[in-house]
Amino acid sequence: MFEAVEVGRKVSKEDFKAREPELHVQLLKAQRSLRKQGTPLIIVVAGVELAGKADVVRRLNRWFDARGVENVAFWDPTDEETGRPYYWRFWRRMPTRGSISIMFGSWYSRPIVEHAHDTINDGDFDRVMDRNRRLERMLRQDGALIVKFWFHLERKEQRRRLKKVRKEGANIHLDQQAQFAERYTDLAATAERAIRQTDTGECPWFLVECGDKRYRDLTVGETLLQTIDHFLEKGNGNGQSQAFHELTPIDIAGADTTILDRVELDQALDRERYKEALEQHQSRIRRHAWEMYERRRNVVVVFEGWDAAGKGGAIRRIVAAVDPRLYHLISVSAPTDEELAHHYLWRFWRHIPPAGGMTIYDRSWYGRVLVERVEGFASAAEWQRAYQEINDFEEQLVEHGTVLLKFFMHISPEEQLRRFEEREKTPWKKHKLTDEDWRNRDKWDAYVQAVNEMVSRTSTHFAPWHIIAGNDKYHARVDVVRTFDETVTAALKADKD
Amino acid sequence: MFEAVEVGRKVSKEDFKAREPELHVQLLKAQRSLRKQGTPLIIVVAGVELAGKADVVRRLNRWFDARGVENVAFWDPTDEETGRPYYWRFWRRMPTRGSISIMFGSWYSRPIVEHAHDTINDGDFDRVMDRNRRLERMLRQDGALIVKFWFHLERKEQRRRLKKVRKEGANIHLDQQAQFAERYTDLAATAERAIRQTDTGECPWFLVECGDKRYRDLTVGETLLQTIDHFLEKGNGNGQSQAFHELTPIDIAGADTTILDRVELDQALDRERYKEALEQHQSRIRRHAWEMYERRRNVVVVFEGWDAAGKGGAIRRIVAAVDPRLYHLISVSAPTDEELAHHYLWRFWRHIPPAGGMTIYDRSWYGRVLVERVEGFASAAEWQRAYQEINDFEEQLVEHGTVLLKFFMHISPEEQLRRFEEREKTPWKKHKLTDEDWRNRDKWDAYVQAVNEMVSRTSTHFAPWHIIAGNDKYHARVDVVRTFDETVTAALKADKD
Repeated sequence: MFEAVEVGRKVSKEDFKAREPELHVQLLKAQRSLRKQGTPLIIVVAGVELAGKADVVRRLNRWFDARGVENVAFWDPTDEETGRPYYWRFWRRMPTRGSISIMFGSWYSRPIVEHAHDTINDGDFDRVMDRNRRLERMLRQDGALIVKFWFHLERKEQRRRLKKVRKEGANIHLDQQAQFAERYTDLAATAERAIRQTDTGECPWFLVECGDKRYRDLTVGETLLQTIDHFLEKGNGNGQSQAFHELTPIDIAGADTTILDRVELDQALDRERYKEALEQHQSRIRRHAWEMYERRRNVVVVFEGWDAAGKGGAIRRIVAAVDPRLYHLISVSAPTDEELAHHYLWRFWRHIPPAGGMTIYDRSWYGRVLVERVEGFASAAEWQRAYQEINDFEEQLVEHGTVLLKFFMHISPEEQLRRFEEREKTPWKKHKLTDEDWRNRDKWDAYVQAVNEMVSRTSTHFAPWHIIAGNDKYHARVDVVRTFDETVTAALKADKD
Repeated sequence: MFEAVEVGRKVSKEDFKAREPELHVQLLKAQRSLRKQGTPLIIVVAGVELAGKADVVRRLNRWFDARGVENVAFWDPTDEETGRPYYWRFWRRMPTRGSISIMFGSWYSRPIVEHAHDTINDGDFDRVMDRNRRLERMLRQDGALIVKFWFHLERKEQRRRLKKVRKEGANIHLDQQAQFAERYTDLAATAERAIRQTDTGECPWFLVECGDKRYRDLTVGETLLQTIDHFLEKGNGNGQSQAFHELTPIDIAGADTTILDRVELDQALDRERYKEALEQHQSRIRRHAWEMYERRRNVVVVFEGWDAAGKGGAIRRIVAAVDPRLYHLISVSAPTDEELAHHYLWRFWRHIPPAGGMTIYDRSWYGRVLVERVEGFASAAEWQRAYQEINDFEEQLVEHGTVLLKFFMHISPEEQLRRFEEREKTPWKKHKLTDEDWRNRDKWDAYVQAVNEMVSRTSTHFAPWHIIAGNDKYHARVDVVRTFDETVTAALKADKD
């Protein structure tokens, strides 16, 4: 693969000077266009040591208007980062719509280094590459432009530069660079594997020969310009799959039965047994929450459900047993403008708990396939691809060791009406009822369909949905608290085994 | 001080039940009013161990609408936090306008514990308390409501509870609690000292007797209700000093001479000496930037100055010598809505560099006393009190070990006009010129006055202003780069001595 960038290309000083001013102007213009149409641009800068990555980035900072360009390096992860899934540190540095992020190494560095040092095997490496590819496709489909550069340097030339740097002594990474230089062949093999697997039409890699600085920089500049211009020409939709399937009800008797029809809504519990069960579970949760904290195990709980289905009441029964210093409750409402300037999952990633912490989402990323679908805020292509995006996201949480619980609180429309009327009459509940709640009732059937599909597509073995029969509050709360208790207990037991 | 809350107050179950529902409704109402008028509420929860702070907070979470309430605990600082000034961790958790933050311990815990354990002396402790007081006043003046509770428990009762908890064994903090219990007297003395010094009319402490849980919770609820109602009655301005002085020009010959008149704008450098000096400084900066990184010393650089005065060019000459992985350039433009929902310093605090990093602010917090003053975006009271707020902020940076540099790039109005006209003609500079730049020229004299006052009030021995004669670009750039180089070199030298 790398032979093609070991051919000794050079650009003369004169040729560089003749081209650079115009390239500079065109890149500025391209940047303005991206900003105007709200396209985030991610430039991945990866490659062999001493190829001059920092110099290229310096040049790009000069070519682009520095306002709106961020250089992002990923050094050793901080403890806030290691306490969360691997991709959290990348999510927190994602560019906002219309701005540019130049990412050193990005999500490629660590797996490449680990694989070249044989600390992860081929299978694990390929899995990470698959995940990278999916991340990039997801961002691309959300309107981002991603351009990836691999900076290559012949082994001989790298050695020569290493010697020179060693003499100058002005580089803190000298030891690391020397180590990597020794592993040149392994790293090259791994890099090839990485590039091969993640070089897609939508987010391609560009190999850059780095023997000559002027050739290197001009190549990067021209490539960026071409890629951006092409993107702009094709319109914002370029790379965004608009594909979706049409949902036509199938005409078979019983085909319109949904998962919610199977919920036995008449389950109930008397007050005495409710109190007893509640206390029993809560006392165990109280203890286990601290144990989870000690073991640095995170918990993420998602609550979805009909308006007035008892989400708040169930949440209160959980947190009543958890020290308020340990959990964080996120009530999802309208996104802020910083949130709107990112992929829809960003606003949930930012609240992923630190090691040993717990985040409870009162409504969640499932809004994408529920309210956004039903209200038409998301296009069919958007909400249909969200299922996989969500499954990928949740898989990452679980792989990190997060205990993930998802509850859907179900009630009948009649029970909902009764509760709405009750809320109107109760002084400390009145504030919970909005006009929107009444409007949502009209779309009950559309929501049922959306819930059914959500469960069928996102109830996975690592993150199953718990559908709670909510007509009887006592029953519902105990069911939630019991499920929570049992799941955490099982996780702790597995931890100790 | 604490005798007054050791009198054995109790509330019967019946009295509690008789009052609670109404209190609940009124607190909800109060919360809605605060939200409506965009008042952030900070509830500080501090006090002796085992007084039941977590239980009170749990109750508050039930009384308030959980949407818009955040419980914030400050455990051991993370490495991202220890790499920055002490208050950074509090700034990052400040409530947005209209929401409630319940802060455990907050900015009081660490100094109290340290003082009670004799790791800081009285003088240092008092300085921190002074700083706390100033922080609170600043937030209050920005429209926040701050209510501080100190939860007190008699020594005997604390011992009794400790025994009980020990038996139950469901508390991870048992060891710490036992330790603190042993230091009861020292902690009480320090707490009294803290409360005495920070119990102001605008942000008072409320001592709460905690022998009886119902009395404790009801007291907190009623106190909050009263305080919020009082705040709402007095209007948003309550606690916000509207005081300012009128600036009348003094009628003495020469009184209108400003600091900018003293700048020798005809200083110039020829191209050869420019190149030589630039290279010399840049090569040292290149080396020292890595050394600063190794020593975990942060750098913050502020650039202010007239439009087209050469801020961008000077910044480029610095960053040309710094590895792009080490610095972060913040170009200050319109705040996002998340930024607007906080005190104006928040948007600058959030970009304070991590250990060993560098942040360059292209325009900065000084906008408050420059553009916001001149354009009338900030009231006289607001921009006049900003000088002290800024000095306090910068003092914290410097005390943390940050190397802080502030440059004001000065040019004559004639030179500015020349540059505007040049920009219009140069393809890759055209984008920099906006209509606003032309409008700002009309306010030249008002800006001169604002700059003069800014320098006179914020050029401190720990953070002096460097006013750069900018008519000649070569001279200006070398002056900036030399100042930067010398300051960093001196800091490293001092570090080693």
